Amino acid sequence: MAFGAEGIGLCRTEHMFFGGERITAVREMILGDTEAERQRALDKLLPMQRDDFAGIFRAMGHRPVTVRTLDPPLHEFLPHSAKEQAEVAAQLGITPEAVKAKVDDLYEANPMLGHRGCRLGIAYPEITRMQARAILEAACIVKKEGVDVKPEIMIPLVGIKQELVDQEQQVRAVAEEVFRQHGIRVDYQVGTMIELPRAALTADKIAETAEFFSFGTNDLTQTTFGVSRDDAGKFLPLYLARDIWPADPFATLDQDGVGELVEMGTRRGRSTRPDLKVGICGEHGGDPASVEFCHRVGMNYVSCSPFRIPVARLAAARAQLSTPRK
Amino acid sequence: MAFGAEGIGLCRTEHMFFGGERITAVREMILGDTEAERQRALDKLLPMQRDDFAGIFRAMGHRPVTVRTLDPPLHEFLPHSAKEQAEVAAQLGITPEAVKAKVDDLYEANPMLGHRGCRLGIAYPEITRMQARAILEAACIVKKEGVDVKPEIMIPLVGIKQELVDQEQQVRAVAEEVFRQHGIRVDYQVGTMIELPRAALTADKIAETAEFFSFGTNDLTQTTFGVSRDDAGKFLPLYLARDIWPADPFATLDQDGVGELVEMGTRRGRSTRPDLKVGICGEHGGDPASVEFCHRVGMNYVSCSPFRIPVARLAAARAQLSTPRK
Repeated sequence: MAFGAEGIGLCRTEHMFFGGERITAVREMILGDTEAERQRALDKLLPMQRDDFAGIFRAMGHRPVTVRTLDPPLHEFLPHSAKEQAEVAAQLGITPEAVKAKVDDLYEANPMLGHRGCRLGIAYPEITRMQARAILEAACIVKKEGVDVKPEIMIPLVGIKQELVDQEQQVRAVAEEVFRQHGIRVDYQVGTMIELPRAALTADKIAETAEFFSFGTNDLTQTTFGVSRDDAGKFLPLYLARDIWPADPFATLDQDGVGELVEMGTRRGRSTRPDLKVGICGEHGGDPASVEFCHRVGMNYVSCSPFRIPVARLAAARAQLSTPRK
Repeated sequence: MAFGAEGIGLCRTEHMFFGGERITAVREMILGDTEAERQRALDKLLPMQRDDFAGIFRAMGHRPVTVRTLDPPLHEFLPHSAKEQAEVAAQLGITPEAVKAKVDDLYEANPMLGHRGCRLGIAYPEITRMQARAILEAACIVKKEGVDVKPEIMIPLVGIKQELVDQEQQVRAVAEEVFRQHGIRVDYQVGTMIELPRAALTADKIAETAEFFSFGTNDLTQTTFGVSRDDAGKFLPLYLARDIWPADPFATLDQDGVGELVEMGTRRGRSTRPDLKVGICGEHGGDPASVEFCHRVGMNYVSCSPFRIPVARLAAARAQLSTPRK
């Protein structure tokens, strides 16, 4: 907020999964073979995540905070060297072979296109429920302290409406339980990231369930171009030198391709839900040309890393001056 | 043709890169550090590819044969175990460390979204030139034998028109050389696969250069859904059991998402080039519901694996009866 932010556009909960005793509980969850074992580990994570969210809500006050449920593939939380695997095994009282077997089991040829995003929450609903509980219990606690909290729960990597419906039902069921236990209700929304071409194409259907959209233009660029940001370095310099791509599409939003999906997704989403709140999160939120584009397609907000906020605010102001919008 | 095929919709040239002395030359090319070293290896491959194509053209006669230029990432041609790397090193007279270093250098986090398709031909134009020469020399040889050959050269994984322009220029330059040397000309076309969402979205621009489109719906499904076919097994059974996806999108074309891109790509492509020949290649070409869809969006042909041809022909006939088209 020091830079003039007006909310948190993307709170990545997985960052709260690393470090100290948390990562141990996360690993215990991943290595659990049954739902009961996973639940026991999640029960340890719940108070830690709740405290994190309470701290964020206190700091942000009435400003909206968008929290994304777990996104990265689970193998990112497990160690890959034999030495570290042995350490984790000792910590959890299991064999190193069991750790290695799980790492092998989670191996993916293309993890970017693998078991991640809402696909995790659908396979392991207890993870979504724990996260929803942490967010909403924190919201109730902070609301009782007199702060008008406005959490937004964002489900990542939705490609088909039914995925969001499944996760929304988990969240809403937990919310009712939490509100009953705390004796108060909190205003919250459930929305989704639009970061797959299929989500943009079927945004009218997804908006039947989603209360807000956030375009994840990093991932949307990867899928629309069929290029992973991690691997693009192999040919990107050549492509730029030979003018095959006019710009690095990860730095400046590709308006003809990715931009058309953003525009289409916004229009189709609002055809179902005229007041749909639409934003963007990713590096593009801090690029002036991309911010101008976001203004033009009618977005409500842009989100970016803190240091880019002044640039983004200036670009948004210029866009409003050149093409005024109510 | 035993099953009633009327051409070859997709001739994967990389299948001609494996086996015997070929794979040795391919590896020599990949391990070459300079264009001259790569060219020397490619010179060994040229006659072998030319003989393959001549054989195919003789067998197919006047029927169109669509040949795709090299598509898979280069690391697929190198061995990954230390033992095999040592064997290759001995064969090529280099150190095992050099082989390992190249394997490491070619490593990609998400090879599906990496340095493959036309990105290879753009980085190593000598590969495209060798393949174009092999195809067109074979065409000239077989035409002199009295066969009316019709090769179609298909550039894979195009996402932006400029990629196709770059590769088309390589092909046309080689073609003129070959025709001059052989003293005859052959009718040939240069087209592209539409297998990335961005290609479908910008099909009007790509059709300024492409003389035909073939929708690669396997890859298009992967990028549109953000799901790799190799990794989908982790959650696909669950998705189908819980009705989150109505069907396996790799078996039956997803008409709402992938299908919209196919329809949009066809329409936009023909807005530029009204007589654009449009087809599909991939598993969907042999699925009756998908064939009915291809008929409806106005495709000229479907392509599939040989054993599925009777099913595809029957489905196409039924589609024509229920919705007649000229």
